[in-house]
Amino acid sequence: MPSVAVYGAAGFTGALAARLLYRHPRFELRWLTARSDVGRRLDDLYPHHRVPLLLEQLDLERHAEVDAAVVAYPHGSAAPLVHELRNRGVRVVDLSADFRLRDVATYERWYGEHPAPGLLADAVYGLPELYRERIAEAELVANPGCYPTAALLALAPLARAGLIEDVVIDAKSGVSGAGRQPTDRTHFVAVDENISAYGVANHRHTPEIEQELAALGAGLPVTFTPHLLPLDQGELVSCYVRMANGLGEPASLYEKAYAGEQFVEGAREPPGVRDVRETNVCRISVHTDPRTERIIVFSAIDNLWKGAASQAVQNLNLMFGLPEGEGIS
Amino acid sequence: MPSVAVYGAAGFTGALAARLLYRHPRFELRWLTARSDVGRRLDDLYPHHRVPLLLEQLDLERHAEVDAAVVAYPHGSAAPLVHELRNRGVRVVDLSADFRLRDVATYERWYGEHPAPGLLADAVYGLPELYRERIAEAELVANPGCYPTAALLALAPLARAGLIEDVVIDAKSGVSGAGRQPTDRTHFVAVDENISAYGVANHRHTPEIEQELAALGAGLPVTFTPHLLPLDQGELVSCYVRMANGLGEPASLYEKAYAGEQFVEGAREPPGVRDVRETNVCRISVHTDPRTERIIVFSAIDNLWKGAASQAVQNLNLMFGLPEGEGIS
Amino acid sequence: MPSVAVYGAAGFTGALAARLLYRHPRFELRWLTARSDVGRRLDDLYPHHRVPLLLEQLDLERHAEVDAAVVAYPHGSAAPLVHELRNRGVRVVDLSADFRLRDVATYERWYGEHPAPGLLADAVYGLPELYRERIAEAELVANPGCYPTAALLALAPLARAGLIEDVVIDAKSGVSGAGRQPTDRTHFVAVDENISAYGVANHRHTPEIEQELAALGAGLPVTFTPHLLPLDQGELVSCYVRMANGLGEPASLYEKAYAGEQFVEGAREPPGVRDVRETNVCRISVHTDPRTERIIVFSAIDNLWKGAASQAVQNLNLMFGLPEGEGIS
Amino acid sequence: MPSVAVYGAAGFTGALAARLLYRHPRFELRWLTARSDVGRRLDDLYPHHRVPLLLEQLDLERHAEVDAAVVAYPHGSAAPLVHELRNRGVRVVDLSADFRLRDVATYERWYGEHPAPGLLADAVYGLPELYRERIAEAELVANPGCYPTAALLALAPLARAGLIEDVVIDAKSGVSGAGRQPTDRTHFVAVDENISAYGVANHRHTPEIEQELAALGAGLPVTFTPHLLPLDQGELVSCYVRMANGLGEPASLYEKAYAGEQFVEGAREPPGVRDVRETNVCRISVHTDPRTERIIVFSAIDNLWKGAASQAVQNLNLMFGLPEGEGIS
Repeated sequence: MPSVAVYGAAGFTGALAARLLYRHPRFELRWLTARSDVGRRLDDLYPHHRVPLLLEQLDLERHAEVDAAVVAYPHGSAAPLVHELRNRGVRVVDLSADFRLRDVATYERWYGEHPAPGLLADAVYGLPELYRERIAEAELVANPGCYPTAALLALAPLARAGLIEDVVIDAKSGVSGAGRQPTDRTHFVAVDENISAYGVANHRHTPEIEQELAALGAGLPVTFTPHLLPLDQGELVSCYVRMANGLGEPASLYEKAYAGEQFVEGAREPPGVRDVRETNVCRISVHTDPRTERIIVFSAIDNLWKGAASQAVQNLNLMFGLPEGEGIS
Repeated sequence: MPSVAVYGAAGFTGALAARLLYRHPRFELRWLTARSDVGRRLDDLYPHHRVPLLLEQLDLERHAEVDAAVVAYPHGSAAPLVHELRNRGVRVVDLSADFRLRDVATYERWYGEHPAPGLLADAVYGLPELYRERIAEAELVANPGCYPTAALLALAPLARAGLIEDVVIDAKSGVSGAGRQPTDRTHFVAVDENISAYGVANHRHTPEIEQELAALGAGLPVTFTPHLLPLDQGELVSCYVRMANGLGEPASLYEKAYAGEQFVEGAREPPGVRDVRETNVCRISVHTDPRTERIIVFSAIDNLWKGAASQAVQNLNLMFGLPEGEGIS
Repeated sequence: MPSVAVYGAAGFTGALAARLLYRHPRFELRWLTARSDVGRRLDDLYPHHRVPLLLEQLDLERHAEVDAAVVAYPHGSAAPLVHELRNRGVRVVDLSADFRLRDVATYERWYGEHPAPGLLADAVYGLPELYRERIAEAELVANPGCYPTAALLALAPLARAGLIEDVVIDAKSGVSGAGRQPTDRTHFVAVDENISAYGVANHRHTPEIEQELAALGAGLPVTFTPHLLPLDQGELVSCYVRMANGLGEPASLYEKAYAGEQFVEGAREPPGVRDVRETNVCRISVHTDPRTERIIVFSAIDNLWKGAASQAVQNLNLMFGLPEGEGIS
Repeated sequence: MPSVAVYGAAGFTGALAARLLYRHPRFELRWLTARSDVGRRLDDLYPHHRVPLLLEQLDLERHAEVDAAVVAYPHGSAAPLVHELRNRGVRVVDLSADFRLRDVATYERWYGEHPAPGLLADAVYGLPELYRERIAEAELVANPGCYPTAALLALAPLARAGLIEDVVIDAKSGVSGAGRQPTDRTHFVAVDENISAYGVANHRHTPEIEQELAALGAGLPVTFTPHLLPLDQGELVSCYVRMANGLGEPASLYEKAYAGEQFVEGAREPPGVRDVRETNVCRISVHTDPRTERIIVFSAIDNLWKGAASQAVQNLNLMFGLPEGEGIS
């Protein structure tokens, strides 16, 4: 049975990855590390995950003892750790943004200097529904951002058809997406009974969405605006698309694209984020507005699951030849 | 002191209008009627409004005893009552959609047969920031819908400049906008920890927004999508605009348009709906996205206040020559 | 493999029972019935349960085809159905209150005439941590109410010690406990940003708690007050206990009582309902207040899970000799 | 017109006091100080308060320029500032706990060393419904804690009757009561869909409640347990009382006690915290449970208003001979 460790298990996504791997029937979870809360048990920090393992200090000596690692570090600090792990032959799924952007210049424009650009060429973008075969072979998988996951699954069938002329992406996310750190923005009183946009015209997930849309055949700048919602887990992405050749029959494109996909679900009614809470599912509905000649696509995920930790496990399953839904269905 | 009555005071917006008028220093609130809950006191239904008046049966005989009426009936049933009131010379602010659309054919396409088309020509669209002078003269004011209020205040400065080429309006509203009736959609368990779109490509506020944008000089079909949020009062409208002649200097258009407006507030940061909760204020921020050549405008209101009841009082103030903010500041 | 049906699967608890049994590795779920929504698929009503089965009309002819039934009907209408099922030899777990009170007179004082008093003698109170052996033999199990489940697990160790002199139970529940029916009380706007008590001094779970405390050795009237909270699933019960012989060492009583219990969890800190969300776990902390000579016990459950549907499955597991946690861990 | 300053206006209660005094028709608000955010405008921190004043550094030189001060500092750091202000003859309403407990030893047992014990004798406990006359004469008013405010108004009529034998106070508060500081406990994700107790058997408001109950004639230790709720403003206190001489007629005690009180409201149904949101009102219902011979009293306030800032203004009104409800009705 392949062995795995989670680095950075004190945060929301690392802790959830730990929970999923602790109960995974085909991986052996060997240890958890953390940068804060070392020495505490994970079920002390997160009782509902029920993982009775200690959070340990990083120990370079032990790296090589595992076959795989999930890295849940912040952007910028993940790359050096990934570098160490790769040097020891450990296969890595990295939850940060450090290996998502293939172009160093783009990375540095949005995130600052890249700590390990030499590894970029090895990284595979870990959206299984688009890159299943390449993920299976990969040594380093860059787990997608939560917004890109929802947006790309919403837009891929149209992008591949080569006809997206323009797109506005209005996204809404629960607070867990902002991470565990208490801040003015995540204080209950700031979020409750509120909604507001943030990162207008400059959110870092924009270049990630554009890179992947371009790879699918839709090279264009996108308007992307996230909003913060008074709920914990859940993300809804509303996409407004103009097509080059009129509306066509978008529904059939989606049916063809996602036939047989275990974790993409078509819906007639606009999906709610409750429909996918605590699942690896992306639920999508497609609508046409003949009056304005727009296609409107809604895509709902759980930002901590399909938008992060359960998608990481889906990637691990692929990398180790296991059934794709093992441990996350 | 002019006297006023509220018809339909058992619903959310009628009850709030009653509260504002009960405490208004320059109107005498004479009676409240209701279609349900007749005989109960309003402070029994809504303790927090603290209005110790009875909900009475409709009594045609008494209509003429008041100078003005606020009608808070559902679409379709408001028009016949408004007709009776106008026949008796009562000046009316109508909260329904019955007199908002000036074109009967448009009304009937979205709402069904119009019960009193003869009155349409008399009605003035009650958005004070756009039609202050005409409202002051009006006998019948059609109080705008909540989404149109927020959207039109967000877009008017651009529309007047004559350069809006295309607009996507992604709107988010709290549950009070769905009214007092308990339904599957307003059940706490359906809304809590959820968000979803509704009325996609066919919400009835669309023609209202289009009519008023056209009147301002921007005749174009708009893409408008509302979403239901897990909060009670508050509405955020996110507008994505393409301009005919490039981005220009939108901020200055807004400063000029709203200089001296008591209830329109400019913000540098994207507004949150908490910022305007329980006020008549519309809070707006304007941003440019040079990468996609879009102007992005956010507009936040309280759907029950500026989106309905306090705007009705603002209109009444204008109609009776009172200071515009009396009783709602 | 034993076969099972769920009667009344359109409600919150019946639907969850259907979900758990649909995925249960050791039961075959044969059909679902409903009183409303017949002909719809369960995953149309509750997408997040992902159960692609139809809701069918009740069909007496087919009753005998299953080994067991979960009945999720309202109080009063459950008993006649249970009667029919028992006549055909089907083993039943009943989620209503109809068979929880062993004394007919008590039942009729709180609920009205009993429709099937002849069956009362057969019913076993389905709290596995107290009556595991008897449940295993039972043909008819009365699944406990949500408040009694949390309260009894909180108080049983003290009650058995025979020393409870007085107890105040202050309980707080999420809205799903009020059922699927939209009402004024379950309207989002009524619950959001609110908390209030209900059923003061006359809630129907009171005699159920008193009956079971008496059976454990603590025959006394209890003060029980539930409150409605702005959250969907979760229930916290705060118990304030006076003991006959001083405070003693309550912690050790709990350790002994629940050693080896899979679904009762001790905590040092007061539990939150999030800690047990979507689990069959009851999480308990015990505190002493030497100043007032009271023992304070907090007990958190998910009202739809341990308070209803997953506890029903736990009972079914026991009745059919399966591992107690099968399908609910 | 008397002049006033607010010290510590960057926190939740200080900022609200600033808002109320900025719009107060009979006080002139001269300045605001803060310990963080100096140089920012209050409406930048709290847009919804709409107070366009700067937060200034503390300046001892200016103290004597105002007639009165509201001090909204944390416990322990308030007393030295109050001392300075009193030395310059400024009348003070202090929102901290520093002058609430009349007995130094009790203060030091719960809060640590007292920084200005010499002032304790001058302080009047600022619950206007109990101590109106003394407040009017006071130079230093200790504004009550939020829980004591709700609990004492709930219990005073019974305490005065001299018959309270035992009382359990189960309290529930919104998150704003925990203050503006972002912490693990106030993170949205920690509170949302959750409820838990805290400060069990050792919350600092306990001695304050006991002191005031004793002053009313009910000298007994109380069991007091607060819980944290997923809402921002609002506090409900549920009191379970045993009386020495049986239940009696509690309702009439309350009617007599609060006849003519502008801010205490009797209710037949258990009050909800929404009923009093953003008001200075305390809403109370009284029930009897003949089965257990208990009187059950519910008391709802807004913890930031009647529980802190608007009660401070009510006290200021009394101190300066103004109508008690001026600026807070």
